[in-house]
Amino acid sequence: MKSVNIGIIGLGTIGMGVYDAIKKNGSLIAKKTGVSVKVIGVADKDKKVLKGIKGGKALIKTSSPRELIANKDIDIIVELIGGIKPAKDIVLEALKNKKHVVTANKELISKCWREIFSSARKNKVFVDFEASVGGVIPIIRTIRTGFRADKIDTVYGILNGTTNFILTEIAEKACSFSEALKLAQKKGFAEKDPELDISGKDSAHKLAILTLLSFGQSASPDDIFTEGINRIEAQDLINAKMWGYSIKLLAIAKKEPKGLQIRVHPTLISARHLLSDVKGTDNAVFVKGELIGESLLFGKGAGRKPTSVSVVGDIIEIAEHIAHYGKRNLVPYNLNYAAGNGKLRNINDIEIPFYLRFSAIDKPGVLAGIASILSKYKISIANVSQEERKAGQVVPVVILTHKAKEGNMQKAIKEIDKKSYVKKKTVVIRIEG
Amino acid sequence: MKSVNIGIIGLGTIGMGVYDAIKKNGSLIAKKTGVSVKVIGVADKDKKVLKGIKGGKALIKTSSPRELIANKDIDIIVELIGGIKPAKDIVLEALKNKKHVVTANKELISKCWREIFSSARKNKVFVDFEASVGGVIPIIRTIRTGFRADKIDTVYGILNGTTNFILTEIAEKACSFSEALKLAQKKGFAEKDPELDISGKDSAHKLAILTLLSFGQSASPDDIFTEGINRIEAQDLINAKMWGYSIKLLAIAKKEPKGLQIRVHPTLISARHLLSDVKGTDNAVFVKGELIGESLLFGKGAGRKPTSVSVVGDIIEIAEHIAHYGKRNLVPYNLNYAAGNGKLRNINDIEIPFYLRFSAIDKPGVLAGIASILSKYKISIANVSQEERKAGQVVPVVILTHKAKEGNMQKAIKEIDKKSYVKKKTVVIRIEG
Repeated sequence: MKSVNIGIIGLGTIGMGVYDAIKKNGSLIAKKTGVSVKVIGVADKDKKVLKGIKGGKALIKTSSPRELIANKDIDIIVELIGGIKPAKDIVLEALKNKKHVVTANKELISKCWREIFSSARKNKVFVDFEASVGGVIPIIRTIRTGFRADKIDTVYGILNGTTNFILTEIAEKACSFSEALKLAQKKGFAEKDPELDISGKDSAHKLAILTLLSFGQSASPDDIFTEGINRIEAQDLINAKMWGYSIKLLAIAKKEPKGLQIRVHPTLISARHLLSDVKGTDNAVFVKGELIGESLLFGKGAGRKPTSVSVVGDIIEIAEHIAHYGKRNLVPYNLNYAAGNGKLRNINDIEIPFYLRFSAIDKPGVLAGIASILSKYKISIANVSQEERKAGQVVPVVILTHKAKEGNMQKAIKEIDKKSYVKKKTVVIRIEG
Repeated sequence: MKSVNIGIIGLGTIGMGVYDAIKKNGSLIAKKTGVSVKVIGVADKDKKVLKGIKGGKALIKTSSPRELIANKDIDIIVELIGGIKPAKDIVLEALKNKKHVVTANKELISKCWREIFSSARKNKVFVDFEASVGGVIPIIRTIRTGFRADKIDTVYGILNGTTNFILTEIAEKACSFSEALKLAQKKGFAEKDPELDISGKDSAHKLAILTLLSFGQSASPDDIFTEGINRIEAQDLINAKMWGYSIKLLAIAKKEPKGLQIRVHPTLISARHLLSDVKGTDNAVFVKGELIGESLLFGKGAGRKPTSVSVVGDIIEIAEHIAHYGKRNLVPYNLNYAAGNGKLRNINDIEIPFYLRFSAIDKPGVLAGIASILSKYKISIANVSQEERKAGQVVPVVILTHKAKEGNMQKAIKEIDKKSYVKKKTVVIRIEG
């Protein structure tokens, strides 16, 4: 049986998961594919972690990634460090050394894909990155292969398990944002510094990758309108439910004649929408196309075991190519197609319905004041609710609007928030129709 | 640009869809892949259909499939006739002639896969069949590639669009089975002779294919316990809803220490389960594994356009291989793995909860009679409902049971149905926990 040799760089949660999965299911994989996948080297900056690995005498353990990259016996480098530095240099050096690369690094792929894929093409090696979006969900492979015959027009979904866990907790237990975050950290679903997840940036990285593959259009994560979930409160989820909605952090990209709409933000979606049933750390992605209609892929969006299945899936695919067609004449995935720089729509021009929660003093004329400012900016009201009554004190006033221009909404809210009867920044949540 | 030539055999709904999709999106496909896919021949027994195709002078139109199989310029034969005869002979002859084959034929793959894949291996050509299960849903590719690193233990889902449409109609409009079937036929969702769909056989063919790929275990469709939907009435869907369930035709395969459980039948599932939201002609498949947890793939299960995307996706994958690695040295998918003949569990030994609807005369002692027979067979009751009262006349008595052995249930129902107070065959629907 042919065998293919692997070096894993970065032994964090996913790195250890990949190491364990190959150890555990190696013989099953060999049986399924006829190829033996062997981890012959691991690298991590933490020597304690290296020491903890029991891999027999032959296993190379090193704190220098370059030792693996330079090793002539290694066919595939698995990069699981994350972030740009030093991951980018490591990946580029591996490619230069004609190593295939498998990575779960969404930031790296979303920001440096041009450089990486042009080097991969030059060196005739693969770069696979299924685990960079949606954990175990085979979304990248599906867009790259199964749905290739169609013109995709929309990709949207829940791409971050941490924020979905927090929103689910708040919805189900009516707890505060910070309580839910603490629980997520305790359970290992959120980092000590949760900024990347909470802010929506992690979702934006993933959305940039999906946009590249779906529309052949490059969108830097910095170009994506991104809003996090830190201002969502239990009362918003309760209000949303009352009107038949749930609140999810959605990543949305739509190809339209006017350009590409691309945004990440908390969103009210109908409680009957399949995405409303996606709870906890689960992820889900909808893909819409002219021919395919609407398709959904759902699964664990994070976690050692599910994510490692996607990484090992990539490893096996490359290993099979090596075993079948030799090490040297491989034709990597053609990302040339995705080199386009189509127009991105300005968020201010996009028309969406909104959920607004004002913290206003309960006194006559307040609602009229808010309504007249909204009307000035051509924003029409669909529903108003002011359930609490506490004369002279601050109460929530919730308004659902019809479709309005984002730019107009921003101006209206700025003006309203300056009024003396508004005591806190208004909560603005977009609604997906 | 390299080009790969296609011959399509069978110009029914899907065949025409594939022809149109390649025509419509050919340049997009070439841009994405760097390979030009060309249909150079079509075959159909109906000469009128052939005449209707406008393909330019170079297009071969023939009523003889063998003309395409013998054509030296054709690289890939797309078989879209369906059924065993003459599809099997056509496919085997194409393989012998070293043509790659793409097919959507679930009956053929589920029943004749050994012969077909052994010939494919011998002749070093691919046989791809993504469209044979779940229309546009990339379930076959996902099990074959993305989820390959895991040990899958359960596959279950809604694999037939016709029956799901009918059950959705009955649930939403409280119409009769035959009214719903008529509508399905009118809309083109059911064949004139709907037996293959209604009886659950179509789902069984698909489940046999998924079982082969997921567990490496061969299960002939004839070995699968299969029950259709023709006895479901509106009142069953209403009763189910009252208890928080919906009714779906599920195809279920579970790998257990005692053997493989494999069955197709109408099933009560919780209204909160994602499958309950799968309506109309949509399909959905859950895959569960040790590492991946629970994953769902959802999309259009039938129809010209979605299914053609899966067929063309297969065509492109093969075309890329040909373009990259030449026509002659390709290594097709290894189905050796799937040659196992593991043990199938006897349906009578399986323990499941049940929904029972008796048509019994409304008189004292009837419920006691039913209950005592159930108890004799160790079937314990979870819920009883007899909403209507019509002394001396036939009324429905609905019982939900705890887990009971299928074999015992069959015996109990046989005995109950012989009682003079039971006037119609009892409706038995299994519940999925």
